[in-house]
Parts: sequence; C-alpha cells; structure tokens
Amino acid sequence: MKDTEDTGRVTISPVGFIRTPFDEKFAVPRQSSLVHHGHFEIFFYPPYDCEEAFNGIDEFSHLWITFLFDRIPEDPVFRPMVRPPRLGGNTFKGVFATRSPFRPNRTGLSVVRLVEVKRYNGRVSLIIDGADMVNNTPVIDVKPYIKFVDSVPDAVSGFALEAPKMHKVVFSEKAMLQIKDSGVSDFKELIEEVLSQDPRPAYRTQQTDERVYGVGLCGFDVKWQARAEVIHVLYLEEGMPG
Amino acid sequence: MKDTEDTGRVTISPVGFIRTPFDEKFAVPRQSSLVHHGHFEIFFYPPYDCEEAFNGIDEFSHLWITFLFDRIPEDPVFRPMVRPPRLGGNTFKGVFATRSPFRPNRTGLSVVRLVEVKRYNGRVSLIIDGADMVNNTPVIDVKPYIKFVDSVPDAVSGFALEAPKMHKVVFSEKAMLQIKDSGVSDFKELIEEVLSQDPRPAYRTQQTDERVYGVGLCGFDVKWQARAEVIHVLYLEEGMPG
Repeated sequence: MKDTEDTGRVTISPVGFIRTPFDEKFAVPRQSSLVHHGHFEIFFYPPYDCEEAFNGIDEFSHLWITFLFDRIPEDPVFRPMVRPPRLGGNTFKGVFATRSPFRPNRTGLSVVRLVEVKRYNGRVSLIIDGADMVNNTPVIDVKPYIKFVDSVPDAVSGFALEAPKMHKVVFSEKAMLQIKDSGVSDFKELIEEVLSQDPRPAYRTQQTDERVYGVGLCGFDVKWQARAEVIHVLYLEEGMPG
Repeated sequence: MKDTEDTGRVTISPVGFIRTPFDEKFAVPRQSSLVHHGHFEIFFYPPYDCEEAFNGIDEFSHLWITFLFDRIPEDPVFRPMVRPPRLGGNTFKGVFATRSPFRPNRTGLSVVRLVEVKRYNGRVSLIIDGADMVNNTPVIDVKPYIKFVDSVPDAVSGFALEAPKMHKVVFSEKAMLQIKDSGVSDFKELIEEVLSQDPRPAYRTQQTDERVYGVGLCGFDVKWQARAEVIHVLYLEEGMPG
C-alpha cells in the first residue's frame, strides 16, 4: 500500500463538505431525524462532483454520511471514557459504547434522507434533510442506505434513549421581527426544531436556569432562555455566539 | 488541526483489526447478516483495548464497524462508476450509489450483532456474528447501533435487491472427511452459508459452468462446482486458492 505505513496509518482526503444551518456544536441537534427545516447540502470537490459518480443514487431514499468531527481537537492522549449528554453529563461510558465525537479517528456516521440530486453543468450536489453536523463539516464518504442490511428494527440500544422530551418554544415580538428581516427561509421553524430539544447540558435541564443562552444558526446568534419547561426566544444578534 | 493539511487530508490509525474465516475477497458474503457460523472477533491495539473504552457496550445488541478495504489497491485515478455484482456485473452505477469497495478513501461500513465482550487481564475483544470483511481487515471505529436513529424500516433502496437467492449445497464424501479432520468448528455450516449465496460473479450464475472454483476459508482452499443450481463441495486443499 503506497499510503500505508508500518503502523497501519492511512491518509484520507474528504470528498466534500456539508452546508448546514449550525454554525457551532451547541446548535447541532442530538438526533438528525428531528430537524426538517433549514438548508442542508453536500458539496463535492472535483473530481468527485461529476454526474457519473452519482448515477442511480436517486433510487435511494436515505444515505449514510461518514464525516469528520473536525471541530474536536485531536487529542494525543486516548481518553477511553466519555460522559454522554443524554445521561445527564456526569455518568461515564466507554467511548466505543457511545456516538461521542471525542473518539479515535474522529469519524462520525449519520443516516440522512435524500431530498434532491442537484445537477448543474455536469456537477452534482446533494440536498438532504435533517443532518446533525456543524456547517462545513468534511465528508469522507456517501453510501446508499440499504434497508435489507442496515435496518435492524429489533436492535436493543441499551442506555441510548428514545426521542428526547420536546419543549414548547415561544418567540418574543422582537425575535419575530428579526427572524422576518433575516431573509433566512423557514428560520422560525428551524429555531423551533432546534430549541424544542433543549440543547442545554442535561444537568442544567433539571434545574431553574436564569441564564441567557445563544446558539449559532445561519449566521445569527439566537438568544434564548428556559423558564419552567418553556423555551423563550428573546432576540437575535448577527455573528457567532461569543 | 495538527494533523490536517491545507488540502483537508487527515491521517487515521486503525484502532484494531477483525478476525474472520474469509481468507480472500471471493469468500466474503455479500450480506453479513446471512452468515452465523464461524468465528468473528475484533481485536484492538493498545491503548484502545482497555476495559474502560467498552464500558456499557454490553447494553447494545448491534454495532457499526467502520473499516478499511485495505485489499483494494489505492487508485490514483478516481473511477466514478462501478459494476455492482448484484446487477450482473455489467451495469454501471455511480460509486456513491453503491457500497462497492472501489471507492474514495476505501471505507467500509457494516452492522454486526454483538455476541460477547471478551475481557481478559483488563483487555477487551469483541466476538461478533456474521461480518462481511476479509480476515485481518483494519477497523477504524466501532459505534453502537442506535435503533431510534439508525433503523429506517421504510427506506427505499432502489436497485439494491433483497436477500439473494439461496442455493442447495451438497458435500462429497471426501470433503466431509476433510472438514471433520480440519479441526475448524462449525466448518461445514460455514461453508454451506457462504456457498449457498453462490459467490460467482453474477454473469456466471446465468449459465452452465463446468469450472472448479476455490474459496479461501479458515486457511483452506475449498473447491466447489455449480451444477444445475446446486453447489457441490468437492474437496479441500490447505492454503489460499492459487
């Protein structure tokens, strides 16, 4: 193997990157399947963006995206345990028993619904629904979801819980006006979907919390607060949350 | 990112490798879920083999294995189309519309059933059921299968067919004796499962075929022939098929 050293190390090159509304990790939903608004598109670098490489992909409703958690710093020391947010953030589990981004090789894996294969001048991009990656995440591979082998409806998933509890989201008048002025299509619906899952660390959701949070969505810092199980969207600022 | 160049290239290091009965590509079944005999075990390199890294994994029935198709030579030229064997081997499809190993970054993805977490002196290996990788394939990552997000029972899988047609497998007296003498447990059942799927290229299965084939399983070259839809196991030789 040309590119393989004695240690078994290999070099990989992303085939493209994904555009999502999520400017930072905090904004990314814990389950991709719960977000259906906002624009998600995979762009490919040449030569991977040619039409031939996608011939037949329209016949599949879902795709696997293998991607790189490139916002996670590479850790020279292996940390075998992580604290999954869904378990309250203070229970340790083995990294290979979780989907945590803090893992060797930093590879992520998500199933997404294929919405549209965009073709223009012989180049291709893929519009998808509900991805759970930060904007500009490098894509390592795209594969079709093959129901016969990939769907295991009787799988047992241990401590990984089912759908998270959904919260009511209310918007201030100011936020409503700012959302309207933002020019981002379906922005209100997207904010609603993201915040209804309460992105706060799990230990925070157990208590009264006066803090004003910001999530980075579509170039805006969306400010919000959780009061008695209801998420209040307060106002928007341009740019990333400080 | 330390390890990331301007091109976005990253270096990954396998966390381990998988032991399977399949000494060569030809022996690997096209669906992992159809093989339930034979010994499949994932071994991890230190420090990834420590018990802590697998804490909680017993709670999951299935795992995702991300692996490297390291028997596929790295191709300096991107070939955007492949000929899936299931389509007869002469229909071209885009590589991103297939699970072909001939793909950029050569990453493979399989769901496997977790049978047992082996712990000895604080080190861990995983016994699994029915993997579809060649023996000693490098493993890049292991993740739990999370039914709520990974199982999409209503996914549409286009030209990827359902379960392959199964063939009857009969054994010669000589083969039976050799299998008994091999010392490989469940060897007859494993051969039966592998050959019942008829590993010949699809264009071959349409016609009468007098050829004697060999598949490399568990250190043996298992010789067989297909006659009128029935697979005949003739005899075994030690070593890899020539």
